[in-house]
Amino acid sequence: MSHVEKSCKRADAVTNRARLLAAALAVFAQSGLDLEVNDVASQAQVGVGTLYRHFGNREDLLRALVNDTFEDALTQIRLAVQPHMDDPRAALEALVAAGLRVQQQYRSLFAVMRDPRLKKLLDPARGEARRTQFLDQARGVMERGIQAGIFREDIDPELAAAVIMGSFASVFDHFGKITALAELEQRLFQLLWMMVAKEGGNALLVGSPLIEPGSTGG
Amino acid sequence: MSHVEKSCKRADAVTNRARLLAAALAVFAQSGLDLEVNDVASQAQVGVGTLYRHFGNREDLLRALVNDTFEDALTQIRLAVQPHMDDPRAALEALVAAGLRVQQQYRSLFAVMRDPRLKKLLDPARGEARRTQFLDQARGVMERGIQAGIFREDIDPELAAAVIMGSFASVFDHFGKITALAELEQRLFQLLWMMVAKEGGNALLVGSPLIEPGSTGG
Repeated sequence: MSHVEKSCKRADAVTNRARLLAAALAVFAQSGLDLEVNDVASQAQVGVGTLYRHFGNREDLLRALVNDTFEDALTQIRLAVQPHMDDPRAALEALVAAGLRVQQQYRSLFAVMRDPRLKKLLDPARGEARRTQFLDQARGVMERGIQAGIFREDIDPELAAAVIMGSFASVFDHFGKITALAELEQRLFQLLWMMVAKEGGNALLVGSPLIEPGSTGG
Repeated sequence: MSHVEKSCKRADAVTNRARLLAAALAVFAQSGLDLEVNDVASQAQVGVGTLYRHFGNREDLLRALVNDTFEDALTQIRLAVQPHMDDPRAALEALVAAGLRVQQQYRSLFAVMRDPRLKKLLDPARGEARRTQFLDQARGVMERGIQAGIFREDIDPELAAAVIMGSFASVFDHFGKITALAELEQRLFQLLWMMVAKEGGNALLVGSPLIEPGSTGG
């Protein structure tokens, strides 16, 4: 087999794997942990044999789905926050946008992460490490904001990080069906900003839709 | 059968039902939605026949467990908050204490509430109504605090309620194993209080362990 042929085969395999995982996520949203490999293969429009070449069995597929999902969610949040290391306000805004987006994308899977059946499939140490990695993203934003004198120095960064990370699932569950994601992002960011910024963040919210110039003193 | 005998029989039935539901919760923490009626009966130290007199089948038992759990959790939060209608600070403190306590008690069940298998068993309208009832408890605390001039008037009470309710699961998941519940309650309350109270709540936090008199100006 030529080098080019090998590369193509490898590219196909990568595509099939990605397609199978995307299909698994879609089936998971309907069936949860009862997901059947046949449904995943047919959703991905590949034969079951192809599925088994990538994932030895149903458990392997579920494990790969969970690992892949968390990897991707964490990467999305990291990439969103990273460019704003020097701007805590922009970092918080990017964190909220990525956090809500990731909820919308993966809610069905996040929702059952603590199911005993799923936990049996997964390495508990890895799950713990993963939780910490997510929390660290929000804690980093808090710590840099406090150091920069933008966020209140009396805030516990780790606890605030847990509150912020927890707000994504809760806000998405309560309002995700009735409010557009872009609006939700903006409203949640403004609320969290007011809560963590020095002097309630009012001074820096110029241009915010919540403040209408000329609407005071009437 | 005499009136007294009838009452005793009824009291026994109530006790058995409560015992079976407590056993179901314990089994659920281990097995999740795979819970087996035999395990529940043996955990409750009653025969399977007794179980089937109370719950027609496995699905009935699961449904009763979910309904009972939410009923109890909501009642605990309501009873905690109600005595403090006139004191938003005490109401927030009571809400946080009850919210974390309820997480500790029912985490395994709350964790799979969005599992498609469980959702199939439950009435979606009832689930939605229940979510709203929980949110309303926190929203009520926020609204009364804003009206009383204790909480910041620029806070969106409904969104803040979702952030607060979401913080209980997240904070419990992250710190519940390493921090005593009483300490966690105190720290989370102080963080939320600082975030929602006017002027960052500093003026009213006299006596807080976070403020050490004489520690400034060094």
